Amino acid sequence: MLTYNFAEAQGALYEYIYQRIKDDIMEGNLRQGEKLPSKRAFAKNNGISTITIQNAYDQLISEGYIYAIPQKGYYVAKLEGMKKVQRESSLSLNINMPEERPVYAADLSDNRMNPELFPFSIWAKVLRRTISDKSGELMEASPAGGIGELRTAIAEHLKSFRGMLVDPDQIVIGAGTEYLYGLIVQLLGNGKQYCVENPGYRKIVQVYRQYHITCRYADIDEMGMTFEGLRDTGADIAHISPNHHFPTGITMPAGRRYEILAWANEREGRYIVEDDYDSEFRLNGKPIPTLFSMDACEKVIYMNTFSKSLTPTIRISYMVLPVHLINRFYRELSFYACTVSNFEQYTLAAFMKQGYFEKHINRMRLYYSRQRKKMIEAIKKSKLNEVCEIIENDSGLHFLIRIKTDREDVEILQALAERKIRVNALSEYFFTPSEKKHCFIINYSNVDIEQAGKACDVFYAILAQ
Amino acid sequence: MLTYNFAEAQGALYEYIYQRIKDDIMEGNLRQGEKLPSKRAFAKNNGISTITIQNAYDQLISEGYIYAIPQKGYYVAKLEGMKKVQRESSLSLNINMPEERPVYAADLSDNRMNPELFPFSIWAKVLRRTISDKSGELMEASPAGGIGELRTAIAEHLKSFRGMLVDPDQIVIGAGTEYLYGLIVQLLGNGKQYCVENPGYRKIVQVYRQYHITCRYADIDEMGMTFEGLRDTGADIAHISPNHHFPTGITMPAGRRYEILAWANEREGRYIVEDDYDSEFRLNGKPIPTLFSMDACEKVIYMNTFSKSLTPTIRISYMVLPVHLINRFYRELSFYACTVSNFEQYTLAAFMKQGYFEKHINRMRLYYSRQRKKMIEAIKKSKLNEVCEIIENDSGLHFLIRIKTDREDVEILQALAERKIRVNALSEYFFTPSEKKHCFIINYSNVDIEQAGKACDVFYAILAQ
Repeated sequence: MLTYNFAEAQGALYEYIYQRIKDDIMEGNLRQGEKLPSKRAFAKNNGISTITIQNAYDQLISEGYIYAIPQKGYYVAKLEGMKKVQRESSLSLNINMPEERPVYAADLSDNRMNPELFPFSIWAKVLRRTISDKSGELMEASPAGGIGELRTAIAEHLKSFRGMLVDPDQIVIGAGTEYLYGLIVQLLGNGKQYCVENPGYRKIVQVYRQYHITCRYADIDEMGMTFEGLRDTGADIAHISPNHHFPTGITMPAGRRYEILAWANEREGRYIVEDDYDSEFRLNGKPIPTLFSMDACEKVIYMNTFSKSLTPTIRISYMVLPVHLINRFYRELSFYACTVSNFEQYTLAAFMKQGYFEKHINRMRLYYSRQRKKMIEAIKKSKLNEVCEIIENDSGLHFLIRIKTDREDVEILQALAERKIRVNALSEYFFTPSEKKHCFIINYSNVDIEQAGKACDVFYAILAQ
Repeated sequence: MLTYNFAEAQGALYEYIYQRIKDDIMEGNLRQGEKLPSKRAFAKNNGISTITIQNAYDQLISEGYIYAIPQKGYYVAKLEGMKKVQRESSLSLNINMPEERPVYAADLSDNRMNPELFPFSIWAKVLRRTISDKSGELMEASPAGGIGELRTAIAEHLKSFRGMLVDPDQIVIGAGTEYLYGLIVQLLGNGKQYCVENPGYRKIVQVYRQYHITCRYADIDEMGMTFEGLRDTGADIAHISPNHHFPTGITMPAGRRYEILAWANEREGRYIVEDDYDSEFRLNGKPIPTLFSMDACEKVIYMNTFSKSLTPTIRISYMVLPVHLINRFYRELSFYACTVSNFEQYTLAAFMKQGYFEKHINRMRLYYSRQRKKMIEAIKKSKLNEVCEIIENDSGLHFLIRIKTDREDVEILQALAERKIRVNALSEYFFTPSEKKHCFIINYSNVDIEQAGKACDVFYAILAQ
């Protein structure tokens, strides 16, 4: 007869009995085929209710540790694999989480938006109204490409802001640009050759690599990716940011755009991914028309994100596909649920429709253009100005400076880091060894200008050493 | 001299001039190298300001249609590729969006939650408080695995609800289970062989296929995936739902679990993906311990989702990785931003921490167990009961019925569809031809019981024909 010390029992008694019998089975005290005491005998012997024993036995049956033979009783099940998988040594729980971003005196590599600019109270208001007005829609599955209202709002934004004529049904919404890069590979195939800009944005290469794609690199000149560079890679897909190259800020002129479009037209299966990640922040003149708008042959996939214009912590990006590709998307990939929550899709749709998005962008542009001006003034006032040239491109949330020096970039970065100043060099964005050096990237979107000014003096002091 | 009819101009005048010159360049009226009129002459001639002309020329320069030579003037740029990419015919905008779900008199294939059960007012309250209390954190990038507070809340839930001892740092949060399937492939490699349950959940196979993985199928018996079936596929990864198999509802007993774990232990690189998609809805007894908890050798990846327990329209799922795999995740995949919005991560964390999630699950379980009872009663009251056997498994949001009939499943489904009744047959979930027929799946989570009862009578009438 099984005897357990019920005085130890914590919680439900049936759980205690269940656990003890299970332990006995696992430790071999109860063996395969062994008969367990009848419920009645077990209960009586221990002065507890048969219901309690019944519950414990039921749980053991449902987990498969014992089985019942009607009119006969309960028996220990066969558990052959058990011995092989029992813990032999305790495993260490040694998890290496990535380190937190260190604290710098000035961090000019920080290209995040200024969090204070996020329109919390308006967003909260629109969200609240969405929850009260849309309870039905919020519970309905979103189409794979995203909910219609948001796609319509984006199409209208693209029309008024980018001069793009787009059917809302051509738009696919996803949880971040990286996610959409993955969808593009699934759509176009990973047997293709992909070419990116050199220098360029490293994450594109990292995402593509996850799909077993080894990116080719095409050099850029002062007009962006060169036609010859692209052609020589033998690529099928060109992933570029013609409106504002990262990190140089170069805008590709019309002539080069037509060359790249002509390249895509030369062969079936060639495409251009136009990454328009920060087009909202062109500070002067009309925005540059997109490659997508210039394309008449369904060769361009346009991508954009709300990470820069709203916040990266709400994960919403989108792409606009040529008609034959959106049809392919719905044919082959629409089993995927849209990765963005309905709550945020409907909220963003209302936020855009009610004009808040446009206002917010205008406010941010004003803020960033002032911030840019202040940053340039800070450099001009500092000693660094004696040895540096500011390279402006009227756009984005950063600019470049070129430094007159004989020292190596890595040395300079190292010396800056020791003084708690973080800056990125252009040379860090090359995928292949490059002669291009002494250019540094000044991100001003989220920097304390006073600290940045001091950092410029330190920068100068390091160069003067 | 360029002459345009300014009376037609709508919007800003400079935009009109810019557009007309651009059109003239694109149509060949202005040729490569041709000199444009000087700003002053152009302005004077048309009685408008030189600033207006300057703005138009600046835009054309920034887009690369013209260029300036200092002290000389403005010239049309070289646009060689242009001719090759000009629109020849207007493309049709014939987009084939997926059809909407048709309306049925009774839809027993609908396995969605009842939308009325979503706790709108509490969710809105917690969300509002999150926005006002966490504005700083909401703007900070989430770690790749998700924010710490939510991972901690999930770890606590897993402990109290599933008896799992998990470090929050082992958890990875993502925008839906399908997204996480993709991460698993990226983590384990697509050179591996993946095996799924036959019958089983088709989406797993569809997602894996996107990564160029051809799934192997292992048959199940009354205890779930068989050891022999798994072994014979030669697979490295077994993707299973041992706690509640879809769609049969089978719970894998301890003996079989140890066999499958022993299989994984036999060889380096073998893993089990434990898909625990609806464990919250076990209606009787304690929940079944997870395979993850039984595993002492870091062989099990545990997955779960809030789609069933909260709503699928908030895209939040998670997986728990063994220590060496979470380290691999942070080493190789942490360049990915977490795909779930901070707003929803923090809201869900607070919702769980404040006990609302537990209450909500309890409320849903009560609702679903009543709904299940009503559905069973409706079947028993209908004539269908004469020819059907209800197969219960105490869990999930559906059960199976087995029908006595000589007719083929497809015929029956067709006849039902003609009467506006939708049901799925178990045979539809097999990946390979199967003898298993006459079993049908009754989803009751979101069904009108009265309609479902009538549908049962129709079902009987069809069988009796």
